[in-house]
Order: sequence, then C-alpha cells, then structure tokens
Amino acid sequence: MQTVSHGIPADEGGGPRLASLLRITRAINQVRELRPLLALLASEASAAIGAERSTVFLYDVSRRELWSFVAEGLERQIWFDAGSGIAGRVFRTRTTSIVNDTRSDPSFNPEIDRRTGFSTRSALTVPIIDTMGKATGVFQAVNKMSGDFDGDDAEFLEAVAGEAAVTIENVRQYEKRRRMFESFVSVLADSIEARDPLTAGHSLNVMRYSSGIAANLGMGTDERRAVEYAALLHDYGKIGVPDDVLRKPGPLDQAEAELMRSHVERTASILAAVEFEEELALVPIFAAEHHERLDGSGYPRGLSGDRISRGGRIIAVADVFEALTSVRHYRDPMSHSEAFEAIASQCGRIFDREAVAALGTYLVAEKLLQEDFVSLSMSSSGSDVPAGSGNLPRPSSR
Amino acid sequence: MQTVSHGIPADEGGGPRLASLLRITRAINQVRELRPLLALLASEASAAIGAERSTVFLYDVSRRELWSFVAEGLERQIWFDAGSGIAGRVFRTRTTSIVNDTRSDPSFNPEIDRRTGFSTRSALTVPIIDTMGKATGVFQAVNKMSGDFDGDDAEFLEAVAGEAAVTIENVRQYEKRRRMFESFVSVLADSIEARDPLTAGHSLNVMRYSSGIAANLGMGTDERRAVEYAALLHDYGKIGVPDDVLRKPGPLDQAEAELMRSHVERTASILAAVEFEEELALVPIFAAEHHERLDGSGYPRGLSGDRISRGGRIIAVADVFEALTSVRHYRDPMSHSEAFEAIASQCGRIFDREAVAALGTYLVAEKLLQEDFVSLSMSSSGSDVPAGSGNLPRPSSR
Repeated sequence: MQTVSHGIPADEGGGPRLASLLRITRAINQVRELRPLLALLASEASAAIGAERSTVFLYDVSRRELWSFVAEGLERQIWFDAGSGIAGRVFRTRTTSIVNDTRSDPSFNPEIDRRTGFSTRSALTVPIIDTMGKATGVFQAVNKMSGDFDGDDAEFLEAVAGEAAVTIENVRQYEKRRRMFESFVSVLADSIEARDPLTAGHSLNVMRYSSGIAANLGMGTDERRAVEYAALLHDYGKIGVPDDVLRKPGPLDQAEAELMRSHVERTASILAAVEFEEELALVPIFAAEHHERLDGSGYPRGLSGDRISRGGRIIAVADVFEALTSVRHYRDPMSHSEAFEAIASQCGRIFDREAVAALGTYLVAEKLLQEDFVSLSMSSSGSDVPAGSGNLPRPSSR
Repeated sequence: MQTVSHGIPADEGGGPRLASLLRITRAINQVRELRPLLALLASEASAAIGAERSTVFLYDVSRRELWSFVAEGLERQIWFDAGSGIAGRVFRTRTTSIVNDTRSDPSFNPEIDRRTGFSTRSALTVPIIDTMGKATGVFQAVNKMSGDFDGDDAEFLEAVAGEAAVTIENVRQYEKRRRMFESFVSVLADSIEARDPLTAGHSLNVMRYSSGIAANLGMGTDERRAVEYAALLHDYGKIGVPDDVLRKPGPLDQAEAELMRSHVERTASILAAVEFEEELALVPIFAAEHHERLDGSGYPRGLSGDRISRGGRIIAVADVFEALTSVRHYRDPMSHSEAFEAIASQCGRIFDREAVAALGTYLVAEKLLQEDFVSLSMSSSGSDVPAGSGNLPRPSSR
C-alpha cells in the first residue's frame, strides 16, 4: 500500500497515458449519460495501466453498500457492505490502496470473487471524492498483467477517478435540482388544492388533459413539460382570493368577479419570480394566458388568435373541459359528451380548433368518448358557425 | 487554423503534460472556488504549452459579451462583444483556432491589445463547451515562446478547457439550484402572507428575529440558515385553514382552535415533502416545533426541555414576540418592552432562557430596547419564578 506520487518517466507510460487522459476529457464533455461515460473511463484505465479489468463502485446511501455501477466483464451487479473488503476500506479511509498480493491483505474479501467467478490477484483501488470532500465511491483496477501496480499507476487512476468524481457530481446535481423543482411544484399544487375541497383535483386533471392534448399535437418534450407545469400551476394566483369569493355558491358580483379574474395576473407574477430551468422558461407565459380567448374576448390582456401562446390555448381548452365536467359551487357537472360538444361548438371563436380536436383524440383513446361522437361534434363546429350563434351560452371556468 | 489531433511524441511534451493534467485533475477535486481553480488551469496551460500567458473568457448572457474571468498578468477585466475578435469567432463557431501570426487573421481585434497594453503575436484559442453542448466561454493561450502553436498544443488546451467546462458547469448548477430554492421559498412565504393582510409581514419578521437570536447564540452558518428558512415557512400549514377561522376577530371555539393548531402538523408534512439541501435537512423539524413549550405544554407533540430542537425553541420565542408586538384580529399590539417582559417572565418554563436572552441582545443592538431594561427583565425572570406564577396569562401566538 502506498499513496506517494512519483515523477512520470517520459519514456514509459507518459505518451499513451496522456493520450488516454485527453480522450477521457473529451468524452466527459461529450457523453451525456453517466454509465457509458464511466464504462469508457474504466476501459481507458485498464488499457493505460495494463490491468485485466476495472470496476467503478458507487455508494448507495440508503443501503450503506457499495455496488458495481460499471464492471468490465461482469454481467450482474454486486452489492456489498461499504465497510467490507479492500474497496470498503478505501471508501471509508478515502485513501488509495495498492495490494499486489491479495492473499497478504487481511481486508481482502474472497466472497466477492466467489460470487463473480473471478480471481483477484492484485488490486489498485482509489476513492472517488466529490468537490465537497465526500467519498461517493471507489475506482478499482485489478490484476496488473505485467509487474506490480506502482505509484504512477495510482496517480493515473486517481486522475481518472477525479474525472469520474466531477462527472458524477454534475449528474447528481442535475438530478437533485430536478427533484427539488418537482417537490416545490407539488407543494404549490397541493396548496391551491387545499384552499377549496370542492375543486381539489382540478389542477391535476387540467394537467392530465393538457398533457394529452400536447402529445396529440406532437409537441416536443420540453414544450410539453412546460405545458404540464403551467397547467398544474395555472390557478396558483387564487391563493390570495378570499374564501367567500372562491367558494361562492351563486353568481359573483362585479367586484368579486374582478377579484377572481385577478388570479391570472397574480399567477403570472408569482410564476415569473420562480427560477425555472431554461427549457421551462415558457411556464409563466402559458399559465398567464389560460383565460385568453381566440376572438380577443378573454383576459387579462385580451390577446387574440395565435398571439396567444400554443400552451395558453391548450390549457384554456383543458381548464374549461375539466371545470364543466366537475361539480362547482355554482352548478352541477356536465357529462363528458355534453362538455365536449359545448367546447367544440366554440371552436375557432373561443377555442383553438386543433387543441379541441386533440382533446377529442385524447378522450377517445382514454375511452371517455366515442370516436363517432367526436368527429360529429368537430364537423358541426368551428369557423362555419353562423354569426348569430355568438349568443350561445359560452362555456367557461372561473 | 487546424483542429486535427496528432500522436503525442513520447520524448517531448508527454511527460510534463501528463504531470500537468494529473495536477489539474487533482486540483479540480480539491479547490472549491472557481476563480483560483481556473487561474491554476491557466498557469498550467501556459507552462505546459510554453505560452506567455493564458486567459479564460466567460460569456455573459445578459450583456452578450465575453469577459476575462481569469487573465494572467492582467489587472483589470476586459469586456468585448462576443461576436468580435478571434475569441468571439471561436465562441461563435465552437471551433479551435490556431493563429501563429495575428497580423494575418482579419478577425484579430487589435483594440484589445490597445486596452491592455499587451502585444499579441500568436494565439491558440479553444471553446469551453458544457455537457449540454453549449459554449460558455473560451480558453486562450497567447505568444508561443518558441516555434508555432501546433495540433498537440491544441489538443492539450482542449483538454484543459474541458476540465474548465465541467468545473464551471458544476459551480453554475450549484448556483442555479440555490436560486431555484430561494425563488420557491419566496413564493411559499408570499403565499401564506397573501392569505391574511393583517398578519402580512409576520413570517419575514419572525425570520428576522430568529436569525438575530441564532447569531447571538453563535450558531454555525448552516444551522442558522436552517433556522431562517424554518422561521420563514413556519406558518405555511395555515394555507389550508379557512378564512373565517384564520381571521376570526374573537376567541376560537374548540373545533376552530383544533383546526388552527393543525397548521403545525400540516407545515411539517408539507415541508417534509420538500427536497431540501442536505445542510437544510432540519428545516421541517425546526418548523414543526415552533409551538412546543419547554414545560411540555405545547403542541403538536408536547415535547419538553431540550427534546425540543434548538431551532424550534428559537422560532417559538421569535414567533410569540412578533405576534405580541403586531396587530391581531383578536387584540391590539403590545410595545416591544411589554412583549419582551411578558416573554422573559416565562423563561425556563415556556421559553428557552438562552433564546430569550439572545433576543434581548438582538433588540438592544437594533435599538428597539434599552440594555438596562433587558437585564432587569431577564434577572427578575426564569427558574426562580415562584410556582404560583404559572397562573400569569401565557403569552402566545395562534
């Protein structure tokens, strides 16, 4: 066992090892997925050091075990106590270990060889340490093919493990951010649902319908995710609307209606203050436009036609459909077919025709409506509606 | 200009360059701050390549400019249009550039030399590209001291830039996560404030007092941050309490009081669902214990003494002090001195003595109370209070 670093002999190892590190650095900047990247690091390490194989063990916090995230020539994962074996010792002590005869090391755990059918004669094991100084795993090269593992090998493998550490940290940071984001979004969604037991479930349902519409419109992943989050949070501004307005059983007077309508602007300003991922930058805009109407009669900005974002047009359809098919303080629910017909009848004037058609496709796929009924509703609707039909009751949500 | 990579001659460059990359990898895993780390990368690059100096330019999204984040031998920052000069071209095209005679390159911008008093004869410039494939800056080595920059130099500098890229990305991810966290916490805090105009400002004030107490108790940064966030969010569970209870002008009946008290458990369960940073893991616990009382008479768990977390004991004091000094639906505000006296009189029975003393220190420092008054209140309070004084009205918040 030694951790001392030696000078690099220019005539041996320097060339191929430099080339190897250059390839590794390039890969780290180009390969997006952790497993193929670490697999490449393992094979580069084996080749440059002249070892039979290399393994990357990661630490699993909840199981307190090390497991073979990447193991050359190994088909199944191995898991073992992070306190056991040479790898466990390196993980615990965060100190590189060179063992050129495993029989001489009392830490050596022959159980692992028994489980893998492999025979470990010598092992070079280095810790993987993140920038906060915490060990996240170990990098191990086994069975040097000629001669013994030495300090240069250790120094090289430490560098490879260092590259692995930075990459693992990057990926984990990304995952952490995503989990944090989703946990906060859930809290926000639950909060608005908690305000009114009668409309609980509304946000989640609007998200579901919006997602179905977006999928049937062939939206890309990022835009679709933005639509989903905007749908989930579209009513968040209602957090500041008093109960007696929010839950009023009858029609709202003018002041109450204005207060209620103000929720859209409040949603927009609250969401604008949230630091979204770049690819979700449109969430506040989509959410802010769910009460805009194609003919410009909506609010808060009275936008018309395709000046309303696609996300806004989708959520408008999903929101009204969900509201119509649910109990409200001010009326009974409609059936799915009644609600769809009511919305379809306002295609092109209030609602985006494509979004309504996509909702129809979604409802058919979900077996909530018959295909014939959807086609019929869509064909008897839209821009060919006689001018006078503007007097029809307009389907709406609050 | 060339981007082709060459074989590494083992007799020249391989040794020192490998040693340099090994040092860089080690530094990346050990140096926590971006600027000293990139400064080290720049000096390693200059030395290994044999260049006069190296500069790391980063792209500033809002100004659309490149700026010298790290520049060897340069005292002031330089900023320039990301479309201009050799660096601008490399940034835009994301392609390495070797220019061995700057006079021959029409992109060369002599303005930068004029501003820095430096004379650029030759330049090797490589893009810094993150794992999402986006350029975030450029790495430039200038004035090769003997001979011309060649493909090996380019390959080496690309590797150094690759190391820089991964590190920059790690730091930025961390910052992004922090900004995201803070933006969501603000939304949550604003949401609960929006429920009741009369108590608006309460959460922010409780945070301020709690932070002052924590500082005077000599708490470490992480624990203090956890106290601050817990204080800011301690009432979040009230999001589900109906207005007529939340804003009731008189005393609450038993059912209402129970509903009101339930906010603590709701806060705890909501916050438990949030994915906090590891160092903020105590936030849900601190927030959940702000209505516990030293003598075990609090809720929801009836914890006593130091089974209540230190954060919980701090927020309990801050919360009651803030409530007593503010208008409430059910009573007028007390003065700072009346409120402090009321709290001090319950030291050791209801409130943590050290936390109350630390509040006193804070209020004196903020010139809200006189030092004499605080000493007097504290000395006539605490464990030597006669048993019968338990009948005194207990200061509380809802």
